[in-house]
Amino acid sequence: MIKAAILGSTGYAGAELVKILSMHPDAEVVYPASHSYAGKRFSDIYPGMRGICDLVLQEDDIDKAAECADVIFLALPAGLASKLVTEKLLEKCVVIDLGADYRLHDKAVYEKWYKTEHHSPALLNEAVYGLPEIHRDAIKGKRLIANPGCYTTCSIMTLYPLVKNGLIDTGNIIIDAKSGTSGAGRGEKLGSLFCEVNESIKPYGVTTHRHTPEIEQELSEAAGKSLMVEFTPHLVPMNRGILSVCYARLKDGVSESDVKNAYEEAYGNEKFVRLIDALPETRYVKGTNLVDISYRINERTGNIVAMGAIDNLVKGAAGQAVQNMNIVFGCDEAAGLSCGAAMPL
Amino acid sequence: MIKAAILGSTGYAGAELVKILSMHPDAEVVYPASHSYAGKRFSDIYPGMRGICDLVLQEDDIDKAAECADVIFLALPAGLASKLVTEKLLEKCVVIDLGADYRLHDKAVYEKWYKTEHHSPALLNEAVYGLPEIHRDAIKGKRLIANPGCYTTCSIMTLYPLVKNGLIDTGNIIIDAKSGTSGAGRGEKLGSLFCEVNESIKPYGVTTHRHTPEIEQELSEAAGKSLMVEFTPHLVPMNRGILSVCYARLKDGVSESDVKNAYEEAYGNEKFVRLIDALPETRYVKGTNLVDISYRINERTGNIVAMGAIDNLVKGAAGQAVQNMNIVFGCDEAAGLSCGAAMPL
Amino acid sequence: MIKAAILGSTGYAGAELVKILSMHPDAEVVYPASHSYAGKRFSDIYPGMRGICDLVLQEDDIDKAAECADVIFLALPAGLASKLVTEKLLEKCVVIDLGADYRLHDKAVYEKWYKTEHHSPALLNEAVYGLPEIHRDAIKGKRLIANPGCYTTCSIMTLYPLVKNGLIDTGNIIIDAKSGTSGAGRGEKLGSLFCEVNESIKPYGVTTHRHTPEIEQELSEAAGKSLMVEFTPHLVPMNRGILSVCYARLKDGVSESDVKNAYEEAYGNEKFVRLIDALPETRYVKGTNLVDISYRINERTGNIVAMGAIDNLVKGAAGQAVQNMNIVFGCDEAAGLSCGAAMPL
Amino acid sequence: MIKAAILGSTGYAGAELVKILSMHPDAEVVYPASHSYAGKRFSDIYPGMRGICDLVLQEDDIDKAAECADVIFLALPAGLASKLVTEKLLEKCVVIDLGADYRLHDKAVYEKWYKTEHHSPALLNEAVYGLPEIHRDAIKGKRLIANPGCYTTCSIMTLYPLVKNGLIDTGNIIIDAKSGTSGAGRGEKLGSLFCEVNESIKPYGVTTHRHTPEIEQELSEAAGKSLMVEFTPHLVPMNRGILSVCYARLKDGVSESDVKNAYEEAYGNEKFVRLIDALPETRYVKGTNLVDISYRINERTGNIVAMGAIDNLVKGAAGQAVQNMNIVFGCDEAAGLSCGAAMPL
Repeated sequence: MIKAAILGSTGYAGAELVKILSMHPDAEVVYPASHSYAGKRFSDIYPGMRGICDLVLQEDDIDKAAECADVIFLALPAGLASKLVTEKLLEKCVVIDLGADYRLHDKAVYEKWYKTEHHSPALLNEAVYGLPEIHRDAIKGKRLIANPGCYTTCSIMTLYPLVKNGLIDTGNIIIDAKSGTSGAGRGEKLGSLFCEVNESIKPYGVTTHRHTPEIEQELSEAAGKSLMVEFTPHLVPMNRGILSVCYARLKDGVSESDVKNAYEEAYGNEKFVRLIDALPETRYVKGTNLVDISYRINERTGNIVAMGAIDNLVKGAAGQAVQNMNIVFGCDEAAGLSCGAAMPL
Repeated sequence: MIKAAILGSTGYAGAELVKILSMHPDAEVVYPASHSYAGKRFSDIYPGMRGICDLVLQEDDIDKAAECADVIFLALPAGLASKLVTEKLLEKCVVIDLGADYRLHDKAVYEKWYKTEHHSPALLNEAVYGLPEIHRDAIKGKRLIANPGCYTTCSIMTLYPLVKNGLIDTGNIIIDAKSGTSGAGRGEKLGSLFCEVNESIKPYGVTTHRHTPEIEQELSEAAGKSLMVEFTPHLVPMNRGILSVCYARLKDGVSESDVKNAYEEAYGNEKFVRLIDALPETRYVKGTNLVDISYRINERTGNIVAMGAIDNLVKGAAGQAVQNMNIVFGCDEAAGLSCGAAMPL
Repeated sequence: MIKAAILGSTGYAGAELVKILSMHPDAEVVYPASHSYAGKRFSDIYPGMRGICDLVLQEDDIDKAAECADVIFLALPAGLASKLVTEKLLEKCVVIDLGADYRLHDKAVYEKWYKTEHHSPALLNEAVYGLPEIHRDAIKGKRLIANPGCYTTCSIMTLYPLVKNGLIDTGNIIIDAKSGTSGAGRGEKLGSLFCEVNESIKPYGVTTHRHTPEIEQELSEAAGKSLMVEFTPHLVPMNRGILSVCYARLKDGVSESDVKNAYEEAYGNEKFVRLIDALPETRYVKGTNLVDISYRINERTGNIVAMGAIDNLVKGAAGQAVQNMNIVFGCDEAAGLSCGAAMPL
Repeated sequence: MIKAAILGSTGYAGAELVKILSMHPDAEVVYPASHSYAGKRFSDIYPGMRGICDLVLQEDDIDKAAECADVIFLALPAGLASKLVTEKLLEKCVVIDLGADYRLHDKAVYEKWYKTEHHSPALLNEAVYGLPEIHRDAIKGKRLIANPGCYTTCSIMTLYPLVKNGLIDTGNIIIDAKSGTSGAGRGEKLGSLFCEVNESIKPYGVTTHRHTPEIEQELSEAAGKSLMVEFTPHLVPMNRGILSVCYARLKDGVSESDVKNAYEEAYGNEKFVRLIDALPETRYVKGTNLVDISYRINERTGNIVAMGAIDNLVKGAAGQAVQNMNIVFGCDEAAGLSCGAAMPL
């Protein structure tokens, strides 16, 4: 059994991780930690887990975690992980960081967008961007995995085959993304109150959202040249789900079958990707580690509209983190994630 | 492997059944039938199930179902099952009816409340009311199981220990129950439209709801004497979940520990019942076969307020049906139902 | 023009008050105060009001308010109003308190249920319970109005004609009430987050909710004898609305027409009460000062189920406060409240 | 008093119209008609309107309507209006069509996108596109007003100043729009059921939605040359509201102040447009005839992201129809629409 510690286990992503690991055939949570709730039982905070995970929450102490765990998952606010992770720690444990600190290869880009210092830039080289469908081989055997963001997972995966295969004009990629409210976290913020979210939709972080450079990094790498994206996130009155709707001009001469082949080649054998004819809806992936992807080519305008949907807490956070753990430790990649289908509703 | 047929597999309860059985270690769906969608794939109707259940939907033909299945689940409108089930059929297959046709022992009571004729009254004697926590022994080896209703499961289980042990005045039991909208089914009815349900709560069927005689039958049996209940259901703007809040006068001399003991005795060893100190919330049982039960004694008024919560589509329908199947066929009672905890949200 | 000050104008009830008064033909807001947001514009906090109320928010200073206002509305946490209101203040201004401090006639009852000291018990005698449909004549010309609570307005009005006319057994009145989430206020509390409220229903404050003694006081007065109620509130995933479903045993010999007459007599001429045949739904009163009331008599059980619905922020708070102001100042009682109908959805 | 008939008065847009006209100082509903509910009272169908509009619903008979009304509002399925409106009818009454039949100047474009024949092409010349902020002068005194669509009102108004003033590259305008569920109408369709809409977001009609040519017509006219748009609508789990997020490349040399001036010039004096610094949210315009517009210029990418929000049933349908009526009949343009602010929530 892989022994897992989770720092930040009572946030929404952390709790989803506890849930998934509680059902995992080859792993178990040995050190669920929480800054706010240490000393209480996990199931006091998440009563749905009564009888399934009644472990007592520990202090957010990464050294204690390292003593008992094979893998430490970090689900912490930005800037904290870069302080906590050290070469010495990585000699003891694998670290899978659900936060942003090790996702961007370039310290300067990180510090510009996150407006905070990076405390362990020496580790940026070692960290691997944990999007298995794109970087699977690089993930194997690694000690430090930067688990991708929710919007970024969805947006990168939707656009990757088009960019990789040079099918679209990379000069004007637009990503209009929509997220459920769990993406805003469990903090007691006015903007997350039921009455402030319900019965409304709003854009936020227009032109400035921190997931932008992450998307640009991965798509630039795929394109073999630097590109930028226009990324606009929205808050939707629902708990879970991300939908990325991506717009780009199809290059001259690119046919529908070129597009189809590119997606098939990239994802045809992927367990967690469904290439669908219908348009994606977030409900169909809720509670799963799946990505549903579809596209439409507009003959009138010359654009392609590519669309992807994920569950932000699963493929966009905890599920993908477990997928990464499975790869690092050589388990079946789908272990613990096979609960498969979304509920009918 | 137990081979299962489902008639009415594309309604909400039927689809939940397909989902649960798709993950069941000892059972498989061999005949998913649908009146409206025969010829299409199940996953065309429920795209969340793409890749998990792509079976082609069959005609709602019970005889064909009986040829290939060990167990037939019926998820049909009231009145239909009583026409379809026959002695001959039961010689071939076990039948688990998610509808109401075999729940009431008394044909006259059925016909009065359902305002339709019962076509196979001879089978009423054989049918067993499939609430495992109360009738487990009677269910074993039976051929015809009447799977309880959603409101009734929740309400009966919440009140049963109090009634069984004679702790409350049975002369004035009040049940104020609240249900998610999936309880209204997948029919294209005005009252089920998003804009008609959202941002509102309403009572319905006040004094006349059909689940009333079912609750009265079971609680009367537990009490050893005939009793009536005042049952009021409500529609809540959420997909899933039932909350039953039950009011009764505690008998003179009954202490808190008498109540506690009664619940412990009834449910202390039950896998799917959680006796909790906190008040139940439907979200904590969502997607699970669990029942959360709690109570408060009001010293001022002399009342007990007993509260239970279930997922109407799982313990209130498909999950309980699978639990019954497991008992009848001698599987682990929790097989296929162990996905356990509710999602954090 | 009546000049109005509002202390606590940026809470949900306070903001509704600002909205209503902004449209009032005979009143205007001259001193909108806010503990948290003084110095900002009201429309910075409630951008929906841009161009309608762009007043700068003032300090929560009751003396300054009294200098410029004819009426001061208090929408403050429990315990604060009893400190702020004095005989001297009342010589200058009318005070309408949307909080609980002056609702209970008995200081001891207040302190027991609210667990806080009452600082101006001498004013309890002078304060009038501002439920116009019951105490209209007593409200006229008064200086201190205790505006009723939301649950209490709905529950008292639903039961009043039955109790007043001695039609029900007052020994076991049960009130099962459901509220939208705005009732929990605008505080940044975990339990009010979208993801914690959405897709769930829960009871809370079972046997202990503070609105209980307020209901008991008013119904006891109507009955001419002391009575108790079993009151259970619930949180519903919607912004606005309260539904009270009340259960009681009809006395022997009471006929349906007795009940009908009692309601007609009490409310037949009331502008803001609709006695309806259908069952009430909260959406039909949303955004209005209306109360919809209906009932069902259960011949089987001998019970009456009486049901009322209001908008908790309007008839349950700000609308009723304006109704009280109109009465005190001799305006048309419906002035500013005639926007009438609920939106279709 | 202007006498108004409404054909299709029990759909969501029609009912909103009844509500608005019931409060209008200079108009009254004299002929509320309904195909499905003729003979019932309007308030039987919309119980929120009990006591406000209890008129009996008439047959959908346009000739009878013309006998008693000064203005006929049509809120009918596509294709019906073009059959009903005739030169003879227009001699008797003003017609304001909330449907699409007279919005497109070109019969061929209409028939291509709507896949139905247009039965009165001769009237297309006479019809005026009723977007008052753009075509106010042309609306005055007209007999046939084509009331704009909901998505189109929001999208055109958001982009108009940019296009009109030649500030953006019109070669690649992308409109990603999101709508509440009332936009899908009150028809009993599976896709409109609560459980099918709730907790999910989906795109639909990608590259093919019928509002596309309407947007293109109006923006082409503003640009003085033919242009195309990429328009993607989405269904959001909320009752009301439309948000249009529009992407275009800013032309070289265009400054932020050029953009600001263009919006000020277009809308600075408009009562129903608010140019805001913050990003728009649909809740802030709910229940009002307002349009909130904002934009962000992305210096990195060279794009402008322009965003608008409306209430789809008010400015996107019934409110704008009344605004048009007010203009045609020479009333104050805001008459009946001044209820102003959105509710705080």
